[in-house]
Amino acid sequence: MKEIGVGLVGFGTVGAGVVEGLQRNGALLAERQGVKLRLAKVADLDLERDRGVQVNPGMMTRDAMAAVEDPAVQIVVELIGGVRAARDVILRALELGKPVVTANKALLAEQGAELFQRAAERLTHIHFEASVAGGVPIIRALRDGLAANRIRSVYGILNGTCNYILTRMDRDHVTFEHALKEAQAAGYAEADPALDIDGVDTAHKAAILAGLSYGVFVPMAAVHVEGIRGIAKADIENARALGYRVKLLAVVKEAAGAIEVRVHPTLIPAEQMLASVGGVFNAILVDGDLTGPTAYYGRGAGRLPTASAVLSDLADAARLVALGKRPAMWPERRADAARVRDIGSVEARYYLRVSLLDRPGVLGRLAGVLGQHDISIASVVQKEAHAGKHVPVVIVTHVAREAHMQVALEAIDAMAEVGARTVRLRIEDMEHERKA
Amino acid sequence: MKEIGVGLVGFGTVGAGVVEGLQRNGALLAERQGVKLRLAKVADLDLERDRGVQVNPGMMTRDAMAAVEDPAVQIVVELIGGVRAARDVILRALELGKPVVTANKALLAEQGAELFQRAAERLTHIHFEASVAGGVPIIRALRDGLAANRIRSVYGILNGTCNYILTRMDRDHVTFEHALKEAQAAGYAEADPALDIDGVDTAHKAAILAGLSYGVFVPMAAVHVEGIRGIAKADIENARALGYRVKLLAVVKEAAGAIEVRVHPTLIPAEQMLASVGGVFNAILVDGDLTGPTAYYGRGAGRLPTASAVLSDLADAARLVALGKRPAMWPERRADAARVRDIGSVEARYYLRVSLLDRPGVLGRLAGVLGQHDISIASVVQKEAHAGKHVPVVIVTHVAREAHMQVALEAIDAMAEVGARTVRLRIEDMEHERKA
Repeated sequence: MKEIGVGLVGFGTVGAGVVEGLQRNGALLAERQGVKLRLAKVADLDLERDRGVQVNPGMMTRDAMAAVEDPAVQIVVELIGGVRAARDVILRALELGKPVVTANKALLAEQGAELFQRAAERLTHIHFEASVAGGVPIIRALRDGLAANRIRSVYGILNGTCNYILTRMDRDHVTFEHALKEAQAAGYAEADPALDIDGVDTAHKAAILAGLSYGVFVPMAAVHVEGIRGIAKADIENARALGYRVKLLAVVKEAAGAIEVRVHPTLIPAEQMLASVGGVFNAILVDGDLTGPTAYYGRGAGRLPTASAVLSDLADAARLVALGKRPAMWPERRADAARVRDIGSVEARYYLRVSLLDRPGVLGRLAGVLGQHDISIASVVQKEAHAGKHVPVVIVTHVAREAHMQVALEAIDAMAEVGARTVRLRIEDMEHERKA
Repeated sequence: MKEIGVGLVGFGTVGAGVVEGLQRNGALLAERQGVKLRLAKVADLDLERDRGVQVNPGMMTRDAMAAVEDPAVQIVVELIGGVRAARDVILRALELGKPVVTANKALLAEQGAELFQRAAERLTHIHFEASVAGGVPIIRALRDGLAANRIRSVYGILNGTCNYILTRMDRDHVTFEHALKEAQAAGYAEADPALDIDGVDTAHKAAILAGLSYGVFVPMAAVHVEGIRGIAKADIENARALGYRVKLLAVVKEAAGAIEVRVHPTLIPAEQMLASVGGVFNAILVDGDLTGPTAYYGRGAGRLPTASAVLSDLADAARLVALGKRPAMWPERRADAARVRDIGSVEARYYLRVSLLDRPGVLGRLAGVLGQHDISIASVVQKEAHAGKHVPVVIVTHVAREAHMQVALEAIDAMAEVGARTVRLRIEDMEHERKA
């Protein structure tokens, strides 16, 4: 398998996440994509700090240009942020015909026109999935998946800091100042939070989404921006009473031949999916003329989600460098029967509705049958009482094994006190999501 | 620009949608992707029926193989459905080295192993974005966007018929039989609804998502499938009382080295995003080890959403045929200043919180100022009363123009009876979404 050398410029939070992701999933990515990524050079001003990942010291340099120019580096990942130095790094890489992967929304929004023109002249590419909505592949969705659609509108919650603050104000009735301090303590907001809370970061991302949606560069001066500093608890509460939630929303649409690109705090109907997006999560609602509304949701920032986007771009760039195109990605292996779990060994919580004779001791017998099969009860509700008749009893269990449940249900339905066949449904708590 | 000839086999609902999408947005797609799609041949047993789109009669044939073999056809779109005839069409196209675009989940789930192997032998591709979740680019998200992630789990609401029925039962308290009849009357369910309501269609899609997530073919026999025929109103209501919603859920996960692929009615926590997916919409929650939870939402079926997916695949296939790779898709045009709408001409509904002196006639003066600026009031709420003091008055307006609002606000804040500066927020109703 071909190996492609990667030069990482900027070894901060996301840079360390890229190294960790590559170390953890590099072999899997290579198997899926048919080309192997190899870290060749890492540049950062700070060579000492512990980032929680191991990098061969001989690979590290304080000289960004040395990493870009190193012949072992075939793709350059720019993660230093800011505009001036990042621009120099990217222009030098393009000059050398090396594709660039970047998460730098400020630079793309402000100088994308020049950079993409330079890339085209040098017959290479700039990849920027990580610039908007972190781990959510919204750039690919707009560029590829929805390519056949005229985009009617894009609505985005694109800044986790602002959404965290507004969610806290809404759910916990704290003031803006209180929520901001909390966000700073939790690491969700910078010491100087202006770029986030004044809407500038969201505006950069809105300009990028507008560019993809309508095929034009939107200069930042044409984007109307209002932040969330002025939002009072009273407004959040009034909005809620009116059936709305307040979100910092990026609005991109085309109407009557003109494009609108604006960012401002906005009342969104509470039943709208975007209204339920809480905390540091991002979401984008894209309305295409063929698809109708489609939505995309996930963590918009952070070390590993952003690294996921950078790595997907690296894989794209590497395929172009190595193969000139992408291989089909469909399984080439058949599932070994042993690797697909039989339903009997699957574990879940269960909802049971048992038609049970309302007579003393019967519920105890039912619980006994479940217990014999290693099934423990989390809750029981019997709403009606009709002594001597069958009544519905709703039981929620703790985690149990399907095979045990099947045998238990046979035993239950064979009980003289059970009327109709017991209804059994599984519960999925999706814990990773609820914790998030 | 290169032109690529397309052969369409199957001119039913989705086929007609593809033709309509191509006629409507073909030029836009060509501009975005750098290659032009040209309809070369259309095959269907019925040459007479009016599909609501115009096709040159000389292009039509009843002979599917003639369309596949026609030298003007460089990519074959298979939309006849079913397994046997579709399989023959696809194998013949692959034999000729022509890439195939298909929406046929049954065929892919049951015989994908053989078909993809044949495609690899013939150095061509099968594209299948339309096979799962219609217009939602979930195949691309799993294959490309999340390529660097180990997939921890995929939860999907993948069948619009079932979700429509369950949503009606939940929101309108009707029985399963009633909701099914309604779905049939509305065209959301077939006369013979078995494939949908018994979970088979969802299982086909689950097997495809499992294949992409874990790189193995999952035989249908290994997929545990339960449908929604047995669901009673009582269960939906019990679930709601317990804080859950009932959905037909596809569950794909890897745990302890084995894959789980199952489809069954499931209780989902009400606060979970998937729980709020109503009607014929589809949604997929993918948990990657780097991204954490991400979600994808949209119309999972229908003429134009499915056509959008087919056309995105056609563009991919055409780029491979014409260019051997994809061009960068980033705007090459600068936004003409006139094309970006100035915020002053943007229209929206507004929320205003005015600090107003509680004295007879003052509210009338306020309404008068708004009226002078073409702003009409939809509702006014004044909760507190403190005669002679300032109280918050919350006003929601009808659609108004920003420039008018700005002037009106200046006038309002200059009123002697107005205390603190008026708070102004915009309301986005996202009507396309609420109607859906």
